[in-house]
Amino acid sequence: MSELTVRAGELDAADELAGTRKQFVLDEVVYLDGNSLGALPAAVPGRVDDVVRRQWGALRIRSWDESGWWTAPERIGDRIAPLVGAAAGQIVVGDSTSVNVFKALVGAVRLVSGTGRDEILVDATTFPTDGYIAESAARMTGCTLRPVTPAEVPDALSARTAAVLLNHVDYRTGRLHDLPSLTAAVHAAGAVAVWDLCHSAGALPVGLDEHGVDLAVGCTYKYLNGGPGSPAYLYVRRDLQDRFDSPLPGWNSHAEPFGMRSAYEPAAGALRGRVGTPDILSMLALEAALEVWDGVSVEAVRTKSLALTDFFLECVSAYVPEGRVESLTPLAHRERGSQVALRCDDAGDVMKRLIERAVVGDFRHPDVLRFGFTPLYVGFGDVERAARVLAETLGDLAG
Amino acid sequence: MSELTVRAGELDAADELAGTRKQFVLDEVVYLDGNSLGALPAAVPGRVDDVVRRQWGALRIRSWDESGWWTAPERIGDRIAPLVGAAAGQIVVGDSTSVNVFKALVGAVRLVSGTGRDEILVDATTFPTDGYIAESAARMTGCTLRPVTPAEVPDALSARTAAVLLNHVDYRTGRLHDLPSLTAAVHAAGAVAVWDLCHSAGALPVGLDEHGVDLAVGCTYKYLNGGPGSPAYLYVRRDLQDRFDSPLPGWNSHAEPFGMRSAYEPAAGALRGRVGTPDILSMLALEAALEVWDGVSVEAVRTKSLALTDFFLECVSAYVPEGRVESLTPLAHRERGSQVALRCDDAGDVMKRLIERAVVGDFRHPDVLRFGFTPLYVGFGDVERAARVLAETLGDLAG
Repeated sequence: MSELTVRAGELDAADELAGTRKQFVLDEVVYLDGNSLGALPAAVPGRVDDVVRRQWGALRIRSWDESGWWTAPERIGDRIAPLVGAAAGQIVVGDSTSVNVFKALVGAVRLVSGTGRDEILVDATTFPTDGYIAESAARMTGCTLRPVTPAEVPDALSARTAAVLLNHVDYRTGRLHDLPSLTAAVHAAGAVAVWDLCHSAGALPVGLDEHGVDLAVGCTYKYLNGGPGSPAYLYVRRDLQDRFDSPLPGWNSHAEPFGMRSAYEPAAGALRGRVGTPDILSMLALEAALEVWDGVSVEAVRTKSLALTDFFLECVSAYVPEGRVESLTPLAHRERGSQVALRCDDAGDVMKRLIERAVVGDFRHPDVLRFGFTPLYVGFGDVERAARVLAETLGDLAG
Repeated sequence: MSELTVRAGELDAADELAGTRKQFVLDEVVYLDGNSLGALPAAVPGRVDDVVRRQWGALRIRSWDESGWWTAPERIGDRIAPLVGAAAGQIVVGDSTSVNVFKALVGAVRLVSGTGRDEILVDATTFPTDGYIAESAARMTGCTLRPVTPAEVPDALSARTAAVLLNHVDYRTGRLHDLPSLTAAVHAAGAVAVWDLCHSAGALPVGLDEHGVDLAVGCTYKYLNGGPGSPAYLYVRRDLQDRFDSPLPGWNSHAEPFGMRSAYEPAAGALRGRVGTPDILSMLALEAALEVWDGVSVEAVRTKSLALTDFFLECVSAYVPEGRVESLTPLAHRERGSQVALRCDDAGDVMKRLIERAVVGDFRHPDVLRFGFTPLYVGFGDVERAARVLAETLGDLAG
């Protein structure tokens, strides 16, 4: 047994989050792709079956009231809120991340309408959909879109800047951007800060309220384990809600949705971010999935996450021949999310072989091996094994 | 046994669609609210359980390929296509109806950009969300929104008209609008026709291709029985797809979604209507629900639907004292959808009592009792019983 194997055992034995793993359906696979699709929480299958057979099958239409379907978007939003540092009443769940980026960004530009601001800054290294949707939001609000790296944002801000759309953690490199200082810089320039939390929510503290973020969006199928394509969410800071002017004012956001009035009148509060009828099956699966967070602090998750990625980098250094892979993920903790991205020749082929050997990460075009570490169900033994199998795989390829 | 009870028995015995009822989970309730939420198809619970436990729980991320998750929006669109008279390759499933109305209407206006057309006509009697979203689409494309009744559309069309948004069947009255002639009138004026099929798809022939409809949207949780909040769909006629310019160009609509390119390039075909990651649980529940249509023709459904609503109106006439209710639903078959709306004093209270007596319709503010007839699972005995219980309830209230 190697020294690192021993260390892994000791770290697992001391892991205060080790107990949450049993709340997930897992097997012998080392699953390091929870930053793409979280594993299945054990509470979900039974809950979904109840939603389908009893709530839909037996109660049918009555469930909109009796099973709490109608209020699910805001109820589940309130369950997500503490995970991203938000007080209740500021998040609604529904629609895809892309659709929520559109709501948030158009809404952001409208918050500063009349001020002559006509430029949207967007993270040039963003997950592509944010850039595509930002381009549409710019086009439809008469703004210009200007892609810049997060590091360039402070210098790019000007009296023209209406809104800035940034990712908290970069989907490719795993780099964590400095949300507090970037938000402060955006505000100092008089602009509106919109954050995409897809790769940070559920993995590290976000502090939306504490840092005065204006608007935020995120998905729920990564570190929140909501299931494939589970609905995204929209955060609108409380003091902005009265002025939030959604480009998608569907009937679910009306002050009196069942009044069936021809004139639109937006609801008060975060409800204003709702659009059409919520997809109840996916949404209530998410609600069951969020129960794994009962009694779990995001700070404890963050501590373990950093220990996992530190240990992975250490194991990779020890096992993998020098120069064969290069980490794109920053070493500094304050710049690291909950994944490690390794640049590697033949990354697509390497990942295929890793998966055949039961180590599941993913490949991002053109040369990145991406490994996500979900502290709720990944252990230090998994980490050591993943690095060892990676080294063996690269050795086989070289041989 | 009354003459109408006997007639109901004869009609049920002769019903060629009587066999489809056993494909649904039903009980002793007379369920006439399938125009709001369709009943649970028996195939759905097992399918959803497989999606959750095996596809998500065991295969996890592999299911995007191996379980056909990624291609579900267009595959299920192709399954809906014959139900609305569309050839394959023109429908994608995803997002809510409201979001799809936004895509369709902005896309419609952009199809005629550069022609100076700057007015959108919208059905003034529409389900409210269509009007709210149309107002947003108009605002964001520099158009004026003009609400008119469907009957006024031919006279309201002009060289200014960019697009017209109409409902095939009115959600409140159950009136069926003349899609072929209204579409022809819109085209004769050089404008784009957008139809909302929420209350017609699955209840009667639509003939999208035959009548040259440009764009259409619809929900899937009414006569298509997809479940609460199941995803809606968007139809873009084949010859318009290359010019369809979506206001929500999410990464799922990119020509090469996993290329992760910063420049947007729309996919060919109906895929262009996709946005973000599809909600797989709700979507695959819908796919299972659509299996009840195997071997069922929409024409047979329409024939039975008209027989059901005819018989209901006959039973109401026979049982309910003259003047106590008034049908808002047209008598002419060519003007009738698959529901009957009865204006009634104290309609809210009456519907509550009907539901207590196991006859489930719904109440629409301020004075409408709405009864939807889903030919796949509603029989003539149900119809007779519903009318009889309605008469008894009104009698009790009068007594």
